[in-house]
Amino acid sequence: MTATNGIAPVAVVVRRGERVESEHRVAWAVTDADGRLHGAAGDVARPVFPRSAVKPLQALVLVESGAADRFSVSQRELALACASHGGEPEHVDLVRAWLARLKLDGAALECGAHPPTHAPSAARLIAAGQPPERVHNNCSGKHAGMITVARHLGAPVAGYSRANHPVQRLVADVLRAITGMTDLPAPAIDGCGLPTHPLPLARLATALARFGRPPAALPEARAAACARVRAAMTAHPHLIAGTGRLCSELMAMAPDVLVKTGAEGVYAACLPEQGLGLALKVEDGAGRAAEVALLALLRGLGALGPAAAAALAARARPQLRNHAGLVVGHIEPAPGWTPFGQSS
Amino acid sequence: MTATNGIAPVAVVVRRGERVESEHRVAWAVTDADGRLHGAAGDVARPVFPRSAVKPLQALVLVESGAADRFSVSQRELALACASHGGEPEHVDLVRAWLARLKLDGAALECGAHPPTHAPSAARLIAAGQPPERVHNNCSGKHAGMITVARHLGAPVAGYSRANHPVQRLVADVLRAITGMTDLPAPAIDGCGLPTHPLPLARLATALARFGRPPAALPEARAAACARVRAAMTAHPHLIAGTGRLCSELMAMAPDVLVKTGAEGVYAACLPEQGLGLALKVEDGAGRAAEVALLALLRGLGALGPAAAAALAARARPQLRNHAGLVVGHIEPAPGWTPFGQSS
Repeated sequence: MTATNGIAPVAVVVRRGERVESEHRVAWAVTDADGRLHGAAGDVARPVFPRSAVKPLQALVLVESGAADRFSVSQRELALACASHGGEPEHVDLVRAWLARLKLDGAALECGAHPPTHAPSAARLIAAGQPPERVHNNCSGKHAGMITVARHLGAPVAGYSRANHPVQRLVADVLRAITGMTDLPAPAIDGCGLPTHPLPLARLATALARFGRPPAALPEARAAACARVRAAMTAHPHLIAGTGRLCSELMAMAPDVLVKTGAEGVYAACLPEQGLGLALKVEDGAGRAAEVALLALLRGLGALGPAAAAALAARARPQLRNHAGLVVGHIEPAPGWTPFGQSS
Repeated sequence: MTATNGIAPVAVVVRRGERVESEHRVAWAVTDADGRLHGAAGDVARPVFPRSAVKPLQALVLVESGAADRFSVSQRELALACASHGGEPEHVDLVRAWLARLKLDGAALECGAHPPTHAPSAARLIAAGQPPERVHNNCSGKHAGMITVARHLGAPVAGYSRANHPVQRLVADVLRAITGMTDLPAPAIDGCGLPTHPLPLARLATALARFGRPPAALPEARAAACARVRAAMTAHPHLIAGTGRLCSELMAMAPDVLVKTGAEGVYAACLPEQGLGLALKVEDGAGRAAEVALLALLRGLGALGPAAAAALAARARPQLRNHAGLVVGHIEPAPGWTPFGQSS
């Protein structure tokens, strides 16, 4: 097992030609549901912001509270509640229809507006002279889910994003329970306005292991909620992220793995069949390194079959092309970074 | 003086609330024209790709060769030859007119096309249904300059971007001479298709010190070319980068400092009055960290007067706002990172 504290290793390098141009340090942890480390590097006890990587855990509240059943939340909507979506028409239409069913519209969302991260969708808005709306925010599905919970609780919808709102208290309760952290550190504010509680990578990995294969100690209702959220993610990978996005492609190719990215270089994943959870954080926050590190770790864990590994090969070692289209370099695992003894 | 080899220090942190979310390691060197280190951190002897940070040095060839005089290159055009411009109308019109004077158009540029980095200019193109052209490439001014040199040499314009073309041989000669590296490492290919020669940060800093205040040992013609390029940059900071860009704002506010950014977290700068050159590289390539580190170093060197420091304060510690407009964090010098003994 790799060292579990101190400086995280250089795990991903950016090469221009043959020479390393930039390098990324990655802290990561793989544990089982009991918190036993199967591998780790860097300081995995230091709390880091998981950002959107905990959306599947936040979505448990939507199911456990009974809100999903009461408001007939579909499996597609449940998937979207776990998403950092690209703001493609399919994502946006689904959010609009969900809010309309609650007799609300995008104005109820407290996530703010930003252009779709899916570039062609953003360009379409510009070409049509339309400003980005809150429904385009990559988190709008999660927010629609939290509004649904607020309705179910009979709590005011306005203010649902604040840390002291009943919805966020429920979310914090679930995080406490599934991570086993009775003293959850105080949250900061996420990009979409919600509280984001910092979690040690080892704890986040353990929470994902429990989410992926709930142990007997987990209450039955929570275990059932985990199964329902997992099924939604597996059935609708395109809704979790979108066109050209790693989370969607990976879950479409390797349905035994569930992955969710978070801003600033975070990934959380679970391997239900192995009973393992994984969490990683690129110390500098670079998403390009998070993707390469995730794929190397999953390959090291034997979580990618040959077909998935082949289909994702271009993502495991992305080419860098210059503006004239020439391949001028690669992003790849650092030489000597062999997290599970394999040469990745 | 700080250590000059080994792991670069964490120099810039990204905070969400009060907690560090991400951190950036920065290698840097400040030297005089004789190569004496005034301060450094990280491995400043390891060659790194300076990318666009050497454009002012590459532009020396345009002047020294006589091409600038023969083809009546204006001071604004010379500034644009040093630029990583935003593709704003002012930049693009200037490139078009320059090429037209040579009886050429954008098709002669070998830099490839990309949308303007200036977002409103990119949006205007989309709204007009126009694809980005090569003239919008941030390097199009440099390429126009190199085409001008090719013409002057009587060399073919086609292929001017290849390492074995007479223009690039001249550029390599200047780099060898001004860095003092007789054995310049083999280049890789830059984002715009030109050769990019890796240079140790200490050598790059020394080259900048010489560019800023040429020592007596520099040939007179080269010293004059340095003065002319410096004057162009100082007179037209907006052409060097553009609206909202640090290089332009800094040179407008602090005309005694010349700075040029390069991709993957590089800055090169010179302080002619102090006879110093500066080069920095964020190890992970993050531009957001390069800007904060540059300003902290310049402040530490006393290169920013009170007015400039005040005007650039928001850039020295940028706020992070979420999509709802709320300030949720900052990017700032790391606690304890005091490159010149000051608390930055």
